[in-house]
Amino acid sequence: MTSHRDTLLKKLAAEAGLDLAEPIVAVPRYQVAVEHAGQLHLAGQLPKLRDAIAVQGRVGAEVSLEEARRAARLCMLRALVAARHAVGTLDRVLRPLRLNVHVQCTPGFFEHSEVADAASDMLYILFENEGGHTRTSAGAYSLPKNAAVELDLLLALRDPEPGLSTF
Amino acid sequence: MTSHRDTLLKKLAAEAGLDLAEPIVAVPRYQVAVEHAGQLHLAGQLPKLRDAIAVQGRVGAEVSLEEARRAARLCMLRALVAARHAVGTLDRVLRPLRLNVHVQCTPGFFEHSEVADAASDMLYILFENEGGHTRTSAGAYSLPKNAAVELDLLLALRDPEPGLSTF
Amino acid sequence: MTSHRDTLLKKLAAEAGLDLAEPIVAVPRYQVAVEHAGQLHLAGQLPKLRDAIAVQGRVGAEVSLEEARRAARLCMLRALVAARHAVGTLDRVLRPLRLNVHVQCTPGFFEHSEVADAASDMLYILFENEGGHTRTSAGAYSLPKNAAVELDLLLALRDPEPGLSTF
Repeated sequence: MTSHRDTLLKKLAAEAGLDLAEPIVAVPRYQVAVEHAGQLHLAGQLPKLRDAIAVQGRVGAEVSLEEARRAARLCMLRALVAARHAVGTLDRVLRPLRLNVHVQCTPGFFEHSEVADAASDMLYILFENEGGHTRTSAGAYSLPKNAAVELDLLLALRDPEPGLSTF
Repeated sequence: MTSHRDTLLKKLAAEAGLDLAEPIVAVPRYQVAVEHAGQLHLAGQLPKLRDAIAVQGRVGAEVSLEEARRAARLCMLRALVAARHAVGTLDRVLRPLRLNVHVQCTPGFFEHSEVADAASDMLYILFENEGGHTRTSAGAYSLPKNAAVELDLLLALRDPEPGLSTF
Repeated sequence: MTSHRDTLLKKLAAEAGLDLAEPIVAVPRYQVAVEHAGQLHLAGQLPKLRDAIAVQGRVGAEVSLEEARRAARLCMLRALVAARHAVGTLDRVLRPLRLNVHVQCTPGFFEHSEVADAASDMLYILFENEGGHTRTSAGAYSLPKNAAVELDLLLALRDPEPGLSTF
């Protein structure tokens, strides 16, 4: 099933260099997405392109604010591609509920909100009036694989339409 | 609608210097509060008074434990003022479920729990026997706007009373 | 009530040195576990044995990856012992939903996932096919009581069997 949102996600992901043919698969030790009781939990996403971290390093030092924002967009697109894969179509998303953004930065970097805005903007682009969400951003001392940004997301889902199967 | 809890919150917020006439408004890129399925998600709160961060700096260095605890109380009061604004009255809160506290501190500061206790205490003052909640506190390398403390909160809500509208 | 899972947890906890006779009690200022709407929220757990933090220090410096993994296992076992205490038996757990892992590490430590894997593995050992969960891991600048690792957990619960009381 492909809706306007799915098409837009595909376009945004392709522009960011994400390869949709290569789904964001479950890793051995945990799952990328878990649906329960009308909510979809998404695991922490790193700014990966293919199998490499596209934006590595410390924001405020070797990583610029603009690069950090690009990393945040990549993380969010990966989360949404994983969400779409898990529930079949972004049209099953009622709204995002919560976004947590970790920024690997210098001790004097205080523009976490500007980094997180790049991820939040994606939610409004895709979900428009239903894109409103709560958010926390903070500075991490280090992040997995030297990623500049990591984020996780909680989405509220609609009930699946009767007779509609995502299998 | 104003209950005992609302009156107490107003008093505590006024004592802390928070101006209730100036609501904690939704910012452009995300929302301060999102209600869904009987739960209220609150965005990360900073220790703001009017438009300035009241407690800036690193706990364990230029910010004392007592100042950090004051920051934690301010963050919590802001979260609760935002919650009241979102659902009309604190009487709709069944109980707090989860509190996350980030402390911008020195690498040798290990009293995160004592900082977080100041926020937790507010929940017991306002919700008394129903104030019990789970909590995680950790030390951040930096926080938005050089805030000493940031926290977010998840609240369980009662069903609105039939015939009662908060609009 | 004691099931296969409960017996396995008891064995794993004993092997790790945890004393099950001494339950992980609620602390004065918050609760170790809160059940609401079919979910069990667990407070941040530290790698405690009796009343001392068993693994203290910074991962990548004085704490090795193997010691950090031991700390993660201890934290997870404590969370699960607390969960069992809260709901009577691990058989009431439908599945884990979300795991957050904080690692107190050096700025050049990037193996957070390897630390978190040790905690995730425990979930698969105990819940087998139902152990799948989402996860975020990040590096903290410092953690309470100089703990090397801290984690919190969200579990989905089954409805209690009718006629079955955990009191």
